[in-house]
Amino acid sequence: MIESLKTYNEYIEKAILEHSFPSAPSNLYDPLNYFLKIGGKRIRPALTLIACELFSKDFKEAKHAALAIEFFHNFSLIHDDIMDDAPLRRGTKTVHEKWNQHIAILSGDALLIEAYKELAKSNPKVLGDILEIFNATALYVCEGQQYDMDYELASAVEIDAYLKMIEYKTAVLLGCSLQIGALIGGASKKDAEELYNFGVNLGIAFQLQDDLLDVYADKNKFGKQVGGDILANKKTFLLLTAFENANSTQTNKLNQLLEEKDKELKIEGVKEIYHQLGVKERTLTEMNKYYEIAILNLSHINASDEDKRPLKNLAEFLLNREH
Amino acid sequence: MIESLKTYNEYIEKAILEHSFPSAPSNLYDPLNYFLKIGGKRIRPALTLIACELFSKDFKEAKHAALAIEFFHNFSLIHDDIMDDAPLRRGTKTVHEKWNQHIAILSGDALLIEAYKELAKSNPKVLGDILEIFNATALYVCEGQQYDMDYELASAVEIDAYLKMIEYKTAVLLGCSLQIGALIGGASKKDAEELYNFGVNLGIAFQLQDDLLDVYADKNKFGKQVGGDILANKKTFLLLTAFENANSTQTNKLNQLLEEKDKELKIEGVKEIYHQLGVKERTLTEMNKYYEIAILNLSHINASDEDKRPLKNLAEFLLNREH
Repeated sequence: MIESLKTYNEYIEKAILEHSFPSAPSNLYDPLNYFLKIGGKRIRPALTLIACELFSKDFKEAKHAALAIEFFHNFSLIHDDIMDDAPLRRGTKTVHEKWNQHIAILSGDALLIEAYKELAKSNPKVLGDILEIFNATALYVCEGQQYDMDYELASAVEIDAYLKMIEYKTAVLLGCSLQIGALIGGASKKDAEELYNFGVNLGIAFQLQDDLLDVYADKNKFGKQVGGDILANKKTFLLLTAFENANSTQTNKLNQLLEEKDKELKIEGVKEIYHQLGVKERTLTEMNKYYEIAILNLSHINASDEDKRPLKNLAEFLLNREH
Repeated sequence: MIESLKTYNEYIEKAILEHSFPSAPSNLYDPLNYFLKIGGKRIRPALTLIACELFSKDFKEAKHAALAIEFFHNFSLIHDDIMDDAPLRRGTKTVHEKWNQHIAILSGDALLIEAYKELAKSNPKVLGDILEIFNATALYVCEGQQYDMDYELASAVEIDAYLKMIEYKTAVLLGCSLQIGALIGGASKKDAEELYNFGVNLGIAFQLQDDLLDVYADKNKFGKQVGGDILANKKTFLLLTAFENANSTQTNKLNQLLEEKDKELKIEGVKEIYHQLGVKERTLTEMNKYYEIAILNLSHINASDEDKRPLKNLAEFLLNREH
């Protein structure tokens, strides 16, 4: 984590450690203590604190909202892990794997409610507004997850539909984290909305980079298996772009490669087609487009460049990672 | 449904029919339209409207809160049905049966968020208070469901623990429905709390009656199989009371009956022990105790007997049903 984010991250980690869920029933609350403590980058609550500080000079005012955002994010991970049948999260057993599926459903539900409980502790003056944003975002996140599941079974997916899916599933929560923090800090509705847009555009760029890294990351620095998306036939921005631009020979070859059993041949074959079609460059262009819009959103906000520095740093950090 | 509740019920049915969820993604929202329209007695939202009217003379002020309560209740049913592996609800396929488990998890999540979305439309003056009550209740409901699952696997359950479980799983939501409606109608906090207690005590009495009806209902009027709980070895108030009062011969006989394969012999055998131990009378006494406390709670509320009449009617209706 970069230096300028350290303060926020340490504050959040401490707030999470200090937060106590009830001790009984243990099958409901133990999974929450467990899951919240297996870590994560805590980017979303950090965004809430930073956005608050941009307008109020005291980021602690947004503590409860930041916790609410992190709880919500973890609720969605617990339930997504069931739907994705994922045994591990950050190298540690998922809740449904360590306990069972019913416990993962119910403790996830409880964590969503705990998120609202934290959010409700926010300044009553802005409570109505931040609830409205939180509710709309939470529904987008569910919709994004549903589209993701639908697209997994679909024979073809349009690139625009894919972009909408990653916007809903991932990017809107970054926007929401910022907008809520800003409103708690006393921002105007206009500035808070610009921050929302900044977060959404940054989030889409980040997700496109995620697709890129799966194929082009330095395998010594990348935490996951390079080429994992290719092996899983995952409909990423790269694969969809390849299909959209391929001639009939390339399309046939791609379809053959989807069936290929030899891992090495499969990854190299798909990468060769990506190379022929300039898929890496096209993805970089798209990613940079969203990044530039995000920076433009930030420039519209009524605050000094110095005060905006942590957000710019975070944007640069998120889009230059190799891990 | 009794005459004096008809107005509220028709209003709620209409509000549910008129409420539109988005059309896409259909796998997320179709299950909600489906599930909310398969019916139910709508007792909880009716309580919200009646409690509001007790103080404001216009029950429509509580429309959004009433919808929120009904959405929450249906969210919990969708997820409970997964955990109970129930194929049918009110004679119709459950969501996980008609679609699949992942869709039932995610659409349930969306419905919980939709509940908050409706709740957030309430009068901002009381929003903070009703959110706090709603959040606390929602967590109790999760805790109750967890205790219910835990007790299913437990070798022995104390009667007090059982009463706490039914209070959390069922009764608190009746209390919450009333308390929130009252606060929206302008009730004092004290009156709203008395109504909460009225609802909780009525709810426990109602649940005890549910246990009784399973064994002693007129089979021509009862919607379900008489003796279903006995056949499923369900740890009801009746069975726990029998075990608590049985001598060693009766305990052995009860344990044998839990293993009995012949349905008729099993039901008649358990009923014979219940008869020996006066289980029916003990349960009726306990049920009436909670009912009387509920009526006492109602008497403390600062409103005329005439205005309290619909609540008294509802209480009588709930505790004299034979269907």
